Amino acid sequence: MPLDRNEIPASEDVFSAAQNIAGMVHETPLLSSRQLNELTGANLRFKCEHLQKVGAFKARGAANALSLLPDGVEEVATHSSGNHGAALAWAAAQRGLACTVVMPETAPKTKRMAVEGYSAKVVTSGPSLADRESTLAKVLEETGAHEVPPYDDKRIIAGQGTVAMEVLKQSREQGFAPDVIVAPVGGGGLLSGVGLAMAALAPDILVIGAEPAGADDAQRSLRGGVHITTQQPDTIADGLRTTLGGKNYAVIERTVRDIVTVSEAGIVNAMRLLWTRTKQLVEPSAAVGLAAIIEHSARFRNKNVVVVLTGGNMDLDKVGPLLSSEEN
Amino acid sequence: MPLDRNEIPASEDVFSAAQNIAGMVHETPLLSSRQLNELTGANLRFKCEHLQKVGAFKARGAANALSLLPDGVEEVATHSSGNHGAALAWAAAQRGLACTVVMPETAPKTKRMAVEGYSAKVVTSGPSLADRESTLAKVLEETGAHEVPPYDDKRIIAGQGTVAMEVLKQSREQGFAPDVIVAPVGGGGLLSGVGLAMAALAPDILVIGAEPAGADDAQRSLRGGVHITTQQPDTIADGLRTTLGGKNYAVIERTVRDIVTVSEAGIVNAMRLLWTRTKQLVEPSAAVGLAAIIEHSARFRNKNVVVVLTGGNMDLDKVGPLLSSEEN
Repeated sequence: MPLDRNEIPASEDVFSAAQNIAGMVHETPLLSSRQLNELTGANLRFKCEHLQKVGAFKARGAANALSLLPDGVEEVATHSSGNHGAALAWAAAQRGLACTVVMPETAPKTKRMAVEGYSAKVVTSGPSLADRESTLAKVLEETGAHEVPPYDDKRIIAGQGTVAMEVLKQSREQGFAPDVIVAPVGGGGLLSGVGLAMAALAPDILVIGAEPAGADDAQRSLRGGVHITTQQPDTIADGLRTTLGGKNYAVIERTVRDIVTVSEAGIVNAMRLLWTRTKQLVEPSAAVGLAAIIEHSARFRNKNVVVVLTGGNMDLDKVGPLLSSEEN
Repeated sequence: MPLDRNEIPASEDVFSAAQNIAGMVHETPLLSSRQLNELTGANLRFKCEHLQKVGAFKARGAANALSLLPDGVEEVATHSSGNHGAALAWAAAQRGLACTVVMPETAPKTKRMAVEGYSAKVVTSGPSLADRESTLAKVLEETGAHEVPPYDDKRIIAGQGTVAMEVLKQSREQGFAPDVIVAPVGGGGLLSGVGLAMAALAPDILVIGAEPAGADDAQRSLRGGVHITTQQPDTIADGLRTTLGGKNYAVIERTVRDIVTVSEAGIVNAMRLLWTRTKQLVEPSAAVGLAAIIEHSARFRNKNVVVVLTGGNMDLDKVGPLLSSEEN
């Protein structure tokens, strides 16, 4: 099925999103670290979306989507094992809407508690994507709820793109002139949104995606020029196991310079560096940008680079032990 | 030996310290957390000294001490198993001074690496306080280095007190009117400095110390009116195992309302809350203030409370596993 061109967002949708969500989300800090600059040979700024509402940039897209609902919608629904479910639950609670999130039985308890903490209803499904989709279809049919997808959605992409608008504003305030912005890519909501914003506002800033080598469908799609829609992901970066969406690919193809991949060891090492050097508790997916700076150092050396730290939600029981090996 | 009154700092020493160290240390953020406000029933602000130079407020005291050295000093020395050693090494490197830190053989490898990372010389001693002091005495005799003690020192106390001056400035900027400020107490450098600053600048703000029940010499000293100089500490909060200093006690007796104690389980729970709710990687000692708010809730409910987060340096191998139990 070809994409409806009206459903592919434009830069103007990002600008509107910034107005739609103003006052609902935080302007998160843009931090520097002298130690990480010395270690990487680049001049880095970290955009701290782990300090965003619900602990992830996903709050932006969810808030924007709910500001653009069709008339009469009183209930929304999605399926999610991660931050999008919590973000939608949060945004629905802000607007007094009912919300149902289909979560696989394998979802971490902390994620389920987060969704329930925002008063949303959790419906448990089997673990596969087919299980999740069929359970969601049943929910939509029974409740008449409006579906808000996690990334392959014009409103979501536009919302995530507001991160880049904030980065530009804060860079100006700090007297920092970015050469490059690096954002992790899973489904592609963030990267496509950042691409749209930069294409219109700062076309001289290169937009680079970063993804785990164990979930490299976005790189293969962009470099090969054909959208790959299946993969068997194998990575600790649970937020990046999803496959690039169609609308996301369409935008990325027009606005993103390249996508680089990083190793699993590189992700863990970058996460450890972020924890110990910046004292910021970021989740594995959020460390993929710094991992890219380190593993592709020639590309970033002596450049002014913004790295998006995407979220800070994780099961400390599972992630903590990964850090226990000696520092490299 | 009675204290020399000239060696007990006054509020003016804190004001001078702020000028002495301006430009050398960070103005660290004063953060809020809606979730922790709801959980505690208090209106909290967290002063983020784990984001200070060397990852702890100790940078302030060390920077101030080295701005007030006697003429002709070219080398400084101390003994430390913790953040003071790194802070002194950092401050000495800033001023081009040689620095030796006596560290017990039991000191964590990460702390030793931090000191060496600032180009200081590490001399290893036996683990007891007597071992450390005799090794330092030998170093002082052999090198002629000037000793900078970790807390029982006028310049150090004055430097740590600059935290409170920043808190007052930032509170004004945020439209926040503190009723109470809570600071952890070990040797008492921070708490006495904060007491001095508040006594002069904001005498209506209560200053409360917080310490582990397993190292409660400061509470027993203040409540009993007699300075207790020995204890067998037993606490995970390694930064607070030291015994209250004489100059520190003299200041605390005049400027601090009370000292409360917290349980070990309370410290771990508060650290877990800070990690998961604020995404800030603080060390166990830094969680003692929030633990006090939770364990003495009647005292803080509906109050505007500043909590000093003192540092973020720890051995993740040892501290991580403590967080793995289910959240209470």
